[in-house]
Amino acid sequence: MNTEKKLNMTMLCDFYELTMGNGYFQNGYKDRIVYFDVFFRQVPDEGGFAIAAGLEQLIDYIQQLHFTPEDLAYLRGRNLFCEEFLEYLANFKFTGDIYAVPEGTPMFPREPMVIVRAPAIEAQLIETFTLLTINHQSLIATKANRVVRAAKGRTILEFGSRRAQGADAAIVGARAAFIGGISGTACALSDQLYGVPAGGTMAHAWVQMFDSEYEAFKAYCETYPTNATLLVDTYNTLKSGVPNAIRAFNEVLKPRGITQCGIRLDSGDMAYLTQQARKMLDDAGWTECKISVSNSLDEHLIRDILEQGAQIDVFGVGERLITAKSEPVFGGVYKLAAVEDEAGNITPKIKLSENVGKITVPHFKKVYRLYGNNTGKAIADYMTVYDESVDDSQNLEIFDPRATWKKKTVYDFTAKELLVPIFLKGECVYQSPSLPEIQEYCRQQVETLWEEVKRFDNPHNYYVDLSPKLWQIQQDLLRKNG
Amino acid sequence: MNTEKKLNMTMLCDFYELTMGNGYFQNGYKDRIVYFDVFFRQVPDEGGFAIAAGLEQLIDYIQQLHFTPEDLAYLRGRNLFCEEFLEYLANFKFTGDIYAVPEGTPMFPREPMVIVRAPAIEAQLIETFTLLTINHQSLIATKANRVVRAAKGRTILEFGSRRAQGADAAIVGARAAFIGGISGTACALSDQLYGVPAGGTMAHAWVQMFDSEYEAFKAYCETYPTNATLLVDTYNTLKSGVPNAIRAFNEVLKPRGITQCGIRLDSGDMAYLTQQARKMLDDAGWTECKISVSNSLDEHLIRDILEQGAQIDVFGVGERLITAKSEPVFGGVYKLAAVEDEAGNITPKIKLSENVGKITVPHFKKVYRLYGNNTGKAIADYMTVYDESVDDSQNLEIFDPRATWKKKTVYDFTAKELLVPIFLKGECVYQSPSLPEIQEYCRQQVETLWEEVKRFDNPHNYYVDLSPKLWQIQQDLLRKNG
Repeated sequence: MNTEKKLNMTMLCDFYELTMGNGYFQNGYKDRIVYFDVFFRQVPDEGGFAIAAGLEQLIDYIQQLHFTPEDLAYLRGRNLFCEEFLEYLANFKFTGDIYAVPEGTPMFPREPMVIVRAPAIEAQLIETFTLLTINHQSLIATKANRVVRAAKGRTILEFGSRRAQGADAAIVGARAAFIGGISGTACALSDQLYGVPAGGTMAHAWVQMFDSEYEAFKAYCETYPTNATLLVDTYNTLKSGVPNAIRAFNEVLKPRGITQCGIRLDSGDMAYLTQQARKMLDDAGWTECKISVSNSLDEHLIRDILEQGAQIDVFGVGERLITAKSEPVFGGVYKLAAVEDEAGNITPKIKLSENVGKITVPHFKKVYRLYGNNTGKAIADYMTVYDESVDDSQNLEIFDPRATWKKKTVYDFTAKELLVPIFLKGECVYQSPSLPEIQEYCRQQVETLWEEVKRFDNPHNYYVDLSPKLWQIQQDLLRKNG
Repeated sequence: MNTEKKLNMTMLCDFYELTMGNGYFQNGYKDRIVYFDVFFRQVPDEGGFAIAAGLEQLIDYIQQLHFTPEDLAYLRGRNLFCEEFLEYLANFKFTGDIYAVPEGTPMFPREPMVIVRAPAIEAQLIETFTLLTINHQSLIATKANRVVRAAKGRTILEFGSRRAQGADAAIVGARAAFIGGISGTACALSDQLYGVPAGGTMAHAWVQMFDSEYEAFKAYCETYPTNATLLVDTYNTLKSGVPNAIRAFNEVLKPRGITQCGIRLDSGDMAYLTQQARKMLDDAGWTECKISVSNSLDEHLIRDILEQGAQIDVFGVGERLITAKSEPVFGGVYKLAAVEDEAGNITPKIKLSENVGKITVPHFKKVYRLYGNNTGKAIADYMTVYDESVDDSQNLEIFDPRATWKKKTVYDFTAKELLVPIFLKGECVYQSPSLPEIQEYCRQQVETLWEEVKRFDNPHNYYVDLSPKLWQIQQDLLRKNG
């Protein structure tokens, strides 16, 4: 891990950002203002919504953007770039505007999560890292939120560092999982860097190191009397693990008046074993002993074993969360939405596709979320052109942009703009909330969604509609370019 | 991205490594020498073998292992660790031995890829990062090798940075993909840091920036006459994209005598469109124009469209490679294999499981690969106790450890030890080959495998057998602990 070299994420870009940048430079498009949208087309796991995350790391990246002399030497060595362009890069900084939804916001397909307005070279250069951080963290936050909802209030811990796809996937992945609602992580560095509470007690190796399981448990209780969670499945969970744990609790904790402790199972049938273990612990008076499990868990297995009466307080979720194993890609894209001339006139742009679902929503846009005043629930999202606004003192007729005869009148609602300014003229104007604040915001916002939208399978399609003006612009562009 | 904080990967460990370390320290096990094996139980995608990778980053990590004052302050603040242990950590360095297979080696289930022999605290502390780097890079190298084999000699480029699971997944992932056989990456930083050749030309935004597709192509050819690969699917591939590309080639490249150029398709039916495009290019005299494609590719789609006659020279493979989407977890584990007392006596240890497939192979081991002298092909792998060796001047009878009546005599073979010393007494004794050397070694080693082992679906189970002595030790431990 050559970490000195890792200081500079400016070069973490697809090479074509640089060839296009040099090309814009040489063809007079350097200062052409462009608008790019970051959005996704499908929610992973066919879920009803995604959780936006990764903005804080995007802000850090933008603030640190610069080309070092080593970077320029590398680029010069490629013999593709003109010297004027390299000189321009030597003084490169981001001078544009970025709008984004706050981390933790539930988002739906086709809505911009981030909007970049900047000179073409700048907007292009930041494409790769912007997508990388938003895609990765939104993927993990979305998955974590599913896992957390499956556990119905029980504690979820993130245990996946050893199976993560690289160091950042472990460290930043735990941060994203926390936004989605997990309570803590096994990763010490995520705690140190981001304040994701880290904890952990023992692996099987601890038990194997001692001459007997009982001695291993006793030694652990003596070393950590107030933090004793014993791993009971090294030999035989019910025949030796749980009895030895009870014996160690009785001998070490009871005389000290300690009632809080735990056991953890990492193998075997969780539904059966935890019910038996719970009974053994309760019969021995250890009713406050928490039962943790950690074996190939995900939202589906958690839901299933809870339905089967498993007695579990804490789920440790590993590889299936930290890699979002069931669907490990968040398909956010970065598409040109408009260009602006020197007089400030904005021309909307569209990206066509033979696949109708891939056609973009053009223009510099706003996204409103409409909340019912009686219910507090989110009714629909409503995209407008940048110069429109929603008057929520009046009824609003909305329609499905892909089936315009489907209309709905929204009344007694509050409209909230989702995207907020993050950078204006290159200056950061946004103060990221603390990580617990982001987690709480996420929890509250997920609460505003109807249960139908939150179903794991075949959820209700939440409405994401366009204003008549925006819809007409899209139709005109389709007709013109189609 | 706070990169200064990223300098210190020592804290990228599961918290229980620290609680166990402190516990070993307080219970007199600090200096107990232990042996841990890194191995996997199943090849991803049900393939026949995996490609080992990640060792160079493991070496960097071990060499940089140290706790900073900030780390110690964080740990002290947790109120779990005794002051003597924190003092010990302040002077912590790795003093043990590490053996590993060279990067690029094809590996099979249950074989150690890495063996750590070290004092218990040290061996435990490095568990998380060791697994993380070996798991991640072996995952991507293994997937890349499948994709490369499907392309049957055509060029594979890695295009997945924007969908990677964090920055390391992009940067180091491209390195691992190169080991597996890809020719280059889109990621500029992977080139700069690791020498994975980076390239790229244009995105759809380039085409949209100009008033017409033709003008966009012409400008690109003029800017990069010797590196002109034009993206032809922004509007309509066959009606406008390919004709406009041919027109730009004719007007800009032909007068300069340039015959090498390219087009790229990023959507639509690859088999049909590339055959039509090839014909149009050939008819226009651009027979050297290369056709690149890049749309949700993986080994299966590449194989299918090639069988359907697709005319493709270069495949750009994105999210399905950089996340190993079809199976995004490499399940390497870190299991105690033996302990050593002060007199140097080594006691083998076994980890039992109700699942027979999860029972470990105990002891400090060697792994030999047996190559047939006539064929050059790998016949079987053969694990022995550390103090055994294979005499390849004589016939060797091997047997299936899970079906001992299945015997086979190996003759006229050369035995090669797979694991080599990486660290001895804390000192690195290994010089990593260059990345192209690793790639070439991987290619040669995959060549030694029979085609049956390389099948994508239902491959032949390669033999991984135990010496009679090692098998007997495993049986004795099973009987004793079962």
